[in-house]
Amino acid sequence: MPSAVEGYVRENEARLLNELLDLLRIPSVSTLPEHKGDVARAAQFVADRLGRAGLENVQVIPTARHPLVYAEWLHAPGKPTVLCYGHYDVQPPDPLELWNSPPFDPSIRDGNIYARGACDDKGQMYMHVKAVEALRAVNEGKLPVNLKFLIEGEEEIGGESVAHYVASQKEKLKADVALVSDTELFSDGVPTLCIGLRGLLYAEIEASGPARDLHSGMYGGAAPNAVYGLIELLAKAKDADGHIRIPGLYDDVAAPEQAEIESWKRLPFSEEEFLRHEVGSTQLTGEPEQSVLARIWARPTFEVHGIAGGFTGAGAKTVIPAKATAKVSMRLVPKQDPRRVVAALDKWVQENRPKGIQTQVRILSAGPAISVNPNHPAIQVAAKAFAEMLGKPTVFIRAGGSIPIVGDFATHLGIPTVLMGFGLPDDGLHSPNEKFRISNYYQGIATIAHFLEQYGRQ
Amino acid sequence: MPSAVEGYVRENEARLLNELLDLLRIPSVSTLPEHKGDVARAAQFVADRLGRAGLENVQVIPTARHPLVYAEWLHAPGKPTVLCYGHYDVQPPDPLELWNSPPFDPSIRDGNIYARGACDDKGQMYMHVKAVEALRAVNEGKLPVNLKFLIEGEEEIGGESVAHYVASQKEKLKADVALVSDTELFSDGVPTLCIGLRGLLYAEIEASGPARDLHSGMYGGAAPNAVYGLIELLAKAKDADGHIRIPGLYDDVAAPEQAEIESWKRLPFSEEEFLRHEVGSTQLTGEPEQSVLARIWARPTFEVHGIAGGFTGAGAKTVIPAKATAKVSMRLVPKQDPRRVVAALDKWVQENRPKGIQTQVRILSAGPAISVNPNHPAIQVAAKAFAEMLGKPTVFIRAGGSIPIVGDFATHLGIPTVLMGFGLPDDGLHSPNEKFRISNYYQGIATIAHFLEQYGRQ
Repeated sequence: MPSAVEGYVRENEARLLNELLDLLRIPSVSTLPEHKGDVARAAQFVADRLGRAGLENVQVIPTARHPLVYAEWLHAPGKPTVLCYGHYDVQPPDPLELWNSPPFDPSIRDGNIYARGACDDKGQMYMHVKAVEALRAVNEGKLPVNLKFLIEGEEEIGGESVAHYVASQKEKLKADVALVSDTELFSDGVPTLCIGLRGLLYAEIEASGPARDLHSGMYGGAAPNAVYGLIELLAKAKDADGHIRIPGLYDDVAAPEQAEIESWKRLPFSEEEFLRHEVGSTQLTGEPEQSVLARIWARPTFEVHGIAGGFTGAGAKTVIPAKATAKVSMRLVPKQDPRRVVAALDKWVQENRPKGIQTQVRILSAGPAISVNPNHPAIQVAAKAFAEMLGKPTVFIRAGGSIPIVGDFATHLGIPTVLMGFGLPDDGLHSPNEKFRISNYYQGIATIAHFLEQYGRQ
Repeated sequence: MPSAVEGYVRENEARLLNELLDLLRIPSVSTLPEHKGDVARAAQFVADRLGRAGLENVQVIPTARHPLVYAEWLHAPGKPTVLCYGHYDVQPPDPLELWNSPPFDPSIRDGNIYARGACDDKGQMYMHVKAVEALRAVNEGKLPVNLKFLIEGEEEIGGESVAHYVASQKEKLKADVALVSDTELFSDGVPTLCIGLRGLLYAEIEASGPARDLHSGMYGGAAPNAVYGLIELLAKAKDADGHIRIPGLYDDVAAPEQAEIESWKRLPFSEEEFLRHEVGSTQLTGEPEQSVLARIWARPTFEVHGIAGGFTGAGAKTVIPAKATAKVSMRLVPKQDPRRVVAALDKWVQENRPKGIQTQVRILSAGPAISVNPNHPAIQVAAKAFAEMLGKPTVFIRAGGSIPIVGDFATHLGIPTVLMGFGLPDDGLHSPNEKFRISNYYQGIATIAHFLEQYGRQ
């Protein structure tokens, strides 16, 4: 028998959908200066809808870049407080020519909404707002828990303002748990809670050789080449099986518990499909003694994202480049201290630079991995609520990527985060034809409401 | 006692200089479509001056891109024929902000002409024209040898048209020796003939990994990275001492004769100055058991000029690149067959590609090294004439770069080339503030005339 909230969602489907479409029509691309006004408009839209849903003390808070939106409802004395987080900014839509319908003119096809931000994160963030509306509608204006909302507009560009805000507003944001819907179901219909995120160290490594670019005919054979020097260095970072060869790198790596490893084996995961439909190469690579899920969730990585320097135009130019810079990142796993990894990287670069090459390492960011304790009461309640709504046991997974705000909540507010997302693996976040399944949107509203009800009953 | 030609040059210094300045004012940048008209204007300028100098049958020959200029004087029966080659096109002048005076408004400072093309090659090519004028002026309209001129406008962009022309006009271009002034003195005041040029194989190596760029959080650890795969491959091309590790690469390499090696030891060469003033790195690199001159003149090289692929913009982007392409070149030395080297490169790439990476090798050009026999009569005459004019013994050197036309003359016309240049090592070819010393211009005219006189007396 459907719950009262489910009934409410069903009766209001068309309006709930149309409201989201209105939000998706605002091109709130946070990285592009020409969309600054649109980003502000999206913040105002979210603030308005929070107010209409019954939240109070709604604030649009200016920052150095794009505004934060805050709101609260604190009339459940003795009940826990949940901090809902999401973001209203989106990635740029290009390459535009690969979209089948305009990215900011949402199109409904095959039960999906196609639009930039449909899943990441406007659709998922808006589920929280509508869950509040639904709960109040069926409970005479009351909510089962106290709520605080913090919605940002810089998630796609690093989230600097919200990080400062969380660090400086500990009292205002005080809560028992955070709730974030910016992840996905492991596969269609499988209730999924994410309990681990890798950290990220991002660095530029610069190599210098000759004082200026040289002619490779006149100097080739006796002059150091900055691009080749960087190649020689970077090639030493991993062996042919993908093991990182930076000394000390694995010292602190925490292996997953046996129970977690066993649980991964029960996930509906096909290596063959992962290779064929997601990666699309001739074979999967990386540490052969680790399972594929362990490689992408629980092992550190070393990736080179690109090298700038030298000649890459059309045709032939015979230059010995004076300078070259590589963009490099390392994903970090639980127990690895980013500061220790930075020191290990620095030392390794110094000790391995080729003859005639000078090097410099610039750290752009360094954040640790995040673990959520699956036995925390809020997580247990979320798992139970999720399973009840989808009719299957909830699986606990990790994600290989990084959501820095989860670390900020842990560090500054001392609270865990429920990562309860309703995206699907093929939703195409950051890609052309991003989509969000409409039934997942409705299911998300009802499931979030159910979780809040259950959490309030503890 | 100065020769008659020297006297003529001295009397006409101002006019000889002004004519060159007029040519340097034409921005005949062959690679830029907006300068196509200027390139044509420079061709016409050269044709006019060849006619005024007394050459006959002057032709401006259209090609697929920029015109060739041909002229001849064939009234010395029984005397040898010299084919004078040069080019009237120039490199682009950028970066403009580094020039102390405008690149196409020649400026005279400290006895030098500062302008794009001053040395490479307008100044040097025009010496040939003025040598003809001077010889005719002092010999009642006669020349000591038969002469053919072939001046091109695509040298800086590959010289495709002239290569086709030489291959198809063997009878018209028939000669005993070619004369090219597009090189430099080993050092100031040292008469220098270049008798060896390295060949060049230029290739693009493309690596493919995943089907599309992937998120390094979601797939890092299990998916191949095309940029890193290419790095792993390329790093295997050389050992830490710069020896190329492509099997078979050194099989055909001809070591220089002992006499040539001894002659290099007598050259005024300082490794310390080469490092400090030319290369400008912390140390010289390359094969430790080879002298520096051998490394840049007589040994094959493997250079990476750049890698395209992945992310190289400002900030951080965590992409696993699907594709990457490296620009790679190998300088070739005498006896190396470019076809065998291409085959060795292909095989090596195939056998060394990392797991999950597909590769493709595209050859953009492949030309062999050139050797000129220093005992050829024309070279001997040139060496003697050069020594007489500068008052020092002529040195025979090689150059590490490539001048493909010299190979075309050898292959299609069966003739050697006298590489008699009057540039200085710091003339800054292809760089801002390119210069040509005015006294070298006058000396070049007189020396070329002296060579032609001596060559006619044989």
